[in-house]
Amino acid sequence: MQVATTIEEIRQCVSQARAAGRKVGLVPTMGALHVGHVSLMEAAAARCECVVVSLFVNPTQFGPNEDFDNYPKPFEADVAICERHGVEAVFAPSAAEMYPRENLTWVNVERITEPLCGRSRPIHFRGVTTVCTKLFNIVRPDVAVFGQKDAQQAIVIRRMAADLNMPLEIVVSPTVRESDGLAVSSRNRYLDPQQRRDATALYRSLETCRESIRRGATNVAEIRGQMLDILHAVPGLEVEYVSFVDGESLADLERIQGRVLIAVAARLGPARLIDNILVDTTTL
Amino acid sequence: MQVATTIEEIRQCVSQARAAGRKVGLVPTMGALHVGHVSLMEAAAARCECVVVSLFVNPTQFGPNEDFDNYPKPFEADVAICERHGVEAVFAPSAAEMYPRENLTWVNVERITEPLCGRSRPIHFRGVTTVCTKLFNIVRPDVAVFGQKDAQQAIVIRRMAADLNMPLEIVVSPTVRESDGLAVSSRNRYLDPQQRRDATALYRSLETCRESIRRGATNVAEIRGQMLDILHAVPGLEVEYVSFVDGESLADLERIQGRVLIAVAARLGPARLIDNILVDTTTL
Repeated sequence: MQVATTIEEIRQCVSQARAAGRKVGLVPTMGALHVGHVSLMEAAAARCECVVVSLFVNPTQFGPNEDFDNYPKPFEADVAICERHGVEAVFAPSAAEMYPRENLTWVNVERITEPLCGRSRPIHFRGVTTVCTKLFNIVRPDVAVFGQKDAQQAIVIRRMAADLNMPLEIVVSPTVRESDGLAVSSRNRYLDPQQRRDATALYRSLETCRESIRRGATNVAEIRGQMLDILHAVPGLEVEYVSFVDGESLADLERIQGRVLIAVAARLGPARLIDNILVDTTTL
Repeated sequence: MQVATTIEEIRQCVSQARAAGRKVGLVPTMGALHVGHVSLMEAAAARCECVVVSLFVNPTQFGPNEDFDNYPKPFEADVAICERHGVEAVFAPSAAEMYPRENLTWVNVERITEPLCGRSRPIHFRGVTTVCTKLFNIVRPDVAVFGQKDAQQAIVIRRMAADLNMPLEIVVSPTVRESDGLAVSSRNRYLDPQQRRDATALYRSLETCRESIRRGATNVAEIRGQMLDILHAVPGLEVEYVSFVDGESLADLERIQGRVLIAVAARLGPARLIDNILVDTTTL
């Protein structure tokens, strides 16, 4: 496995794979890899002979009061995980390699970046779409794999790729959960043992929602009320949003119909946690 | 020569050239081709075995009171010119092919899109950078060629390609002029014979400027004054700007130093005309 730190190196490495006729799959990550990321690598490997993982904590997607400085960077462990899972190349550039001069060019996706996480993180998605565009242009993958855990990110990236005719396939891979349902996330390590137990409230609220819809509930206000009861029962948990939106346009819904994304964000101690489910009422 | 009207067709055509190991050069145009465009095709052919010309009057780069509806579309003549100059494929998509749904994704280059033409055409460069990104993603050229006539556009595209790590070379080709110095432009056909003669004032003002600098003038206010004298001598010519800016950052200059872009824009009857020169004082 090659560990490339420069754009030149990773381009050379990937161009050899491409010249040999192998499909290239990219898993863009911020490192601090866990079983969720491993499932993305596996999704890439199922479609491509050459899997590239990028490890880059992208400064432009963090707001001024967010956790950029504290974001975990267990580089050696990350490289070992990639190696163990058949990754062909890791791309781990420095910030100076990715942004060698003042960045004047931004890829902006309008409207669908505004609700949900966009409300509390106004520059976040602009940073994500810009760095993903850069990574796509550097690696030129046939496939790029993202996690359903970051549902809005996946929807935004898909729309960006379609709008800009990017020559690659965007694959969105299911959320991986701990045995008690908590969505696996690099930010779970910010939680103390009590908070870690309490954090399952997000999953429990979503499962209650899924069950209500399965039993025929369609009134969003009612279902949201049940979810908030569960979330508010946890001392110290601050709900940021509990949103019911269309799974493509992210438009707010008052009734459950079509493909619905139910997404939750909450602060718990030092961590900001998100989780979501997609419910397709046409296949219930 | 192939004339492709769909993204699928042009991709197939170019991928054959690429598979045969030939370099691909793209000349993005809005059609209404003239000798200026031919020089861009020649610049592409000098670097690439396979030259692709796109003909697309991009709606998203025109403001509400601009000439989108009247922009000339001599399609058969354009195709004939491409054929005569060894172009391998023309890409002439419809607006619906390029924008099949509401476009939510924009490539924005900040700051250097604000002065000069950006002041009177606030959404223009956003449309240009977005459509060029789309064309680059569709055709995936090794080289894309732009004209120095649209100096700010060339600088903006270069910066966009660098900031986003686009895997292609941007080539900027010299302005082609009529025998009396007027920069060749599709919009010159809007001029009546008297206006056509008067239009040389832009070139004359720029040549006067070049001569002043050659003779050692460095005071921008003085040189601009001489240029405005020439431009204001033309009845009906409305000067939009006469700007002296740094050739990369487009920052305003008060003294001539380094690589200076001197750019002029003016309205003359139904046409908005632009022209420019680059003066490098380090090589004078």
